[in-house]
Amino acid sequence: MTIREHIVDIASRGKRAAQKLANTPTQLKDKALIEMADELIRNSHVLIAENARDLAYAEKKGLSAAMIDRLTLDEATITAMAEGLREVAALPDPVGNITSMWRRPNGLLIGRMRIPLGVIGIIYESRPNVTADAAALCLKSGNAVILRGGSEAIHSNLAIANILQEVLRNVGIPEAAIQIIPITDREAVNELLTLEEYIDLIIPRGGEDLIRAVVAQSKIPVIKHYKGVCHIFVDAAADCDMAVTLCLNAKTQRPGVCNALETLLVHTNIAETFLPEVAQALRNAGVTLRGCKKTRSILPDIAEATEDDWHEEYLDLILAIRVVSDLDEAIGHIETYGSLHTESIITNDYNNSQRFLNEVNSSTVLVNASTRFSDGFQMGLGAEIGISTTKLHAFGPMGLEELTTTKFIIYGDGQIRT
Amino acid sequence: MTIREHIVDIASRGKRAAQKLANTPTQLKDKALIEMADELIRNSHVLIAENARDLAYAEKKGLSAAMIDRLTLDEATITAMAEGLREVAALPDPVGNITSMWRRPNGLLIGRMRIPLGVIGIIYESRPNVTADAAALCLKSGNAVILRGGSEAIHSNLAIANILQEVLRNVGIPEAAIQIIPITDREAVNELLTLEEYIDLIIPRGGEDLIRAVVAQSKIPVIKHYKGVCHIFVDAAADCDMAVTLCLNAKTQRPGVCNALETLLVHTNIAETFLPEVAQALRNAGVTLRGCKKTRSILPDIAEATEDDWHEEYLDLILAIRVVSDLDEAIGHIETYGSLHTESIITNDYNNSQRFLNEVNSSTVLVNASTRFSDGFQMGLGAEIGISTTKLHAFGPMGLEELTTTKFIIYGDGQIRT
Repeated sequence: MTIREHIVDIASRGKRAAQKLANTPTQLKDKALIEMADELIRNSHVLIAENARDLAYAEKKGLSAAMIDRLTLDEATITAMAEGLREVAALPDPVGNITSMWRRPNGLLIGRMRIPLGVIGIIYESRPNVTADAAALCLKSGNAVILRGGSEAIHSNLAIANILQEVLRNVGIPEAAIQIIPITDREAVNELLTLEEYIDLIIPRGGEDLIRAVVAQSKIPVIKHYKGVCHIFVDAAADCDMAVTLCLNAKTQRPGVCNALETLLVHTNIAETFLPEVAQALRNAGVTLRGCKKTRSILPDIAEATEDDWHEEYLDLILAIRVVSDLDEAIGHIETYGSLHTESIITNDYNNSQRFLNEVNSSTVLVNASTRFSDGFQMGLGAEIGISTTKLHAFGPMGLEELTTTKFIIYGDGQIRT
Repeated sequence: MTIREHIVDIASRGKRAAQKLANTPTQLKDKALIEMADELIRNSHVLIAENARDLAYAEKKGLSAAMIDRLTLDEATITAMAEGLREVAALPDPVGNITSMWRRPNGLLIGRMRIPLGVIGIIYESRPNVTADAAALCLKSGNAVILRGGSEAIHSNLAIANILQEVLRNVGIPEAAIQIIPITDREAVNELLTLEEYIDLIIPRGGEDLIRAVVAQSKIPVIKHYKGVCHIFVDAAADCDMAVTLCLNAKTQRPGVCNALETLLVHTNIAETFLPEVAQALRNAGVTLRGCKKTRSILPDIAEATEDDWHEEYLDLILAIRVVSDLDEAIGHIETYGSLHTESIITNDYNNSQRFLNEVNSSTVLVNASTRFSDGFQMGLGAEIGISTTKLHAFGPMGLEELTTTKFIIYGDGQIRT
């Protein structure tokens, strides 16, 4: 079999499984998820042994300590993975729900019913826990999934998938509902991305380079975000203490993630009192500051921010600061440099809070809260399969509902059109 | 200016207009729509004169009578176009609506707010009324639109767009909210379809060839349906008279459209009584029948249906008929040959009606009603910008809401993440 034949075989098996899965009862899907959790724990010695093969290769290849840390499976990470599966089992199943229903003048009763998307391809990097996590969310929402992890995690991923598939067989769900691409050759992904007749959606999870490569190749719709250049605007009417607390949390609570603060915008009327306070708090937390001319007139010992800084997703303890003359300039800055991800205004001015919520068209817009809340779990979606900064289909954090679509159902009693 | 420069200029003007339009009040958009209707009527002599240039060219080129008919503007079609604009003005504006809102344990109040998609490109064929119709739906939903009609209608389309843009200027909406591509060269479309940084969605409206060409070229998401191979399944428990009436309506009320019936599936237990009745009614209406072996054993004088017939969208007074042994075989046939468009079951069996609604994953699924109801107006969406048979973003008839997305808005009072 050529690589293409192999991938077409996987994709067509996925499509057939998806047709069955669309009408698999919630109870059976939940039973599978709970048994999968049990089996992962029961087979943790197998997972750790297979993971050791990946780790040996990673060390030989000289991967960074951070990458090796993300790659490692131990009793704790396997327990967390199993717990994740049980949590997905406990979530409500969106499939089959009627989201609205209305009566037409001719008596037709028309509704929208949630149905799965079909087959979802997930392309991701080193963390093997994504294998179980993504498979669980797709299964629960009635979608077949085709997983393509990084070559550095191939033995771990195959071992996890084997356990999940055995449970599927045992409970009577087609095992092709969860498939992993065993070919580490890059050609395998390129072939996968052409199979629009089998696969309904591609979700890449990883760095910007991975995502750009997927988008450039794919003939299948891709839901993605490249980066999160998140802003906080501290308005003239902000509570200074609250603003310091929120900026500190947004920048430092976990600087390496996409909803961390990257650029701070400060209203000129509050800059002289607020900037020294926030600068001290941030520096105490180890943050390096870069500022516009006006910022540097108040904080003279920081470096100048260049045009590049306004575009930058640092993912690190670095913050760019700009003083703006009013709300319009703040919104204009976000429109020019933002990534449609997450922006927050700190203010006690009612009109400005409403204008910011209405006029900033990022996927998550907050008032008086940390940007770190832009997250499926934190927002109460129950799960997160990814974040979208493109507006089609889903915009912002995506939970189980975003892995479904709706069809129209119509109850009649003999109506014809005249 | 090269063609590319010209198209980039149009697209970037569209994007700037979209940013303004996203926060334009409903009242101002409605005022514009009503004035546009008045101005189209007041300038009907200009429209008819410009349309005459297109008609002269069409006759010289030897276009069919049907195409010339669709191209023609007269007092009646202009009045209908104006009436369409007034109807869109009367529809509710989806933008800014909160579709749901919930409180988190930490006090955060989280909601989803409808916002426009941004810039929409519409690529269509000869009917100039689409220019006004699509522009109105995009304007009402807060989207900037870039229209690219067929070269055969270029003078008519430009004349309509001039009138609409003058109204935009008068009421104070950026005129780039509605733009028409004045270049008839095919390269203009190809360039447009690469501009993903400016354009959020492409909607092609026309024949399957046009749509396939757009999909093959586009880097921008495309919402489309290639064809509608719509089925009716007459179950064993069907009311025979109702089934005849519905089949006749679905096939003959307007055979050239995508929601017309193309393949009739008949339960074997009812075939001997039902087939002669429906055949007589259909033949009286001028329909040519083609059948499977079993069908021909009951209706011996009809032609045999080949494998190709089950895939065919006739758009004509032709119907393929197949006898099936049960509901499963009917659903299997639809899964194999259907186009995910519209399917209806005629039955008085409760279980079968529910199974058909649940298990057939076409965009519109009906019980005891004509497939011709798969239509945005008929279903009460208020309007129809197109029909989608791909599951991402929208599935089935698309109204104003489908031209929007939602962003998350979050009201806090100082919450940080721990």
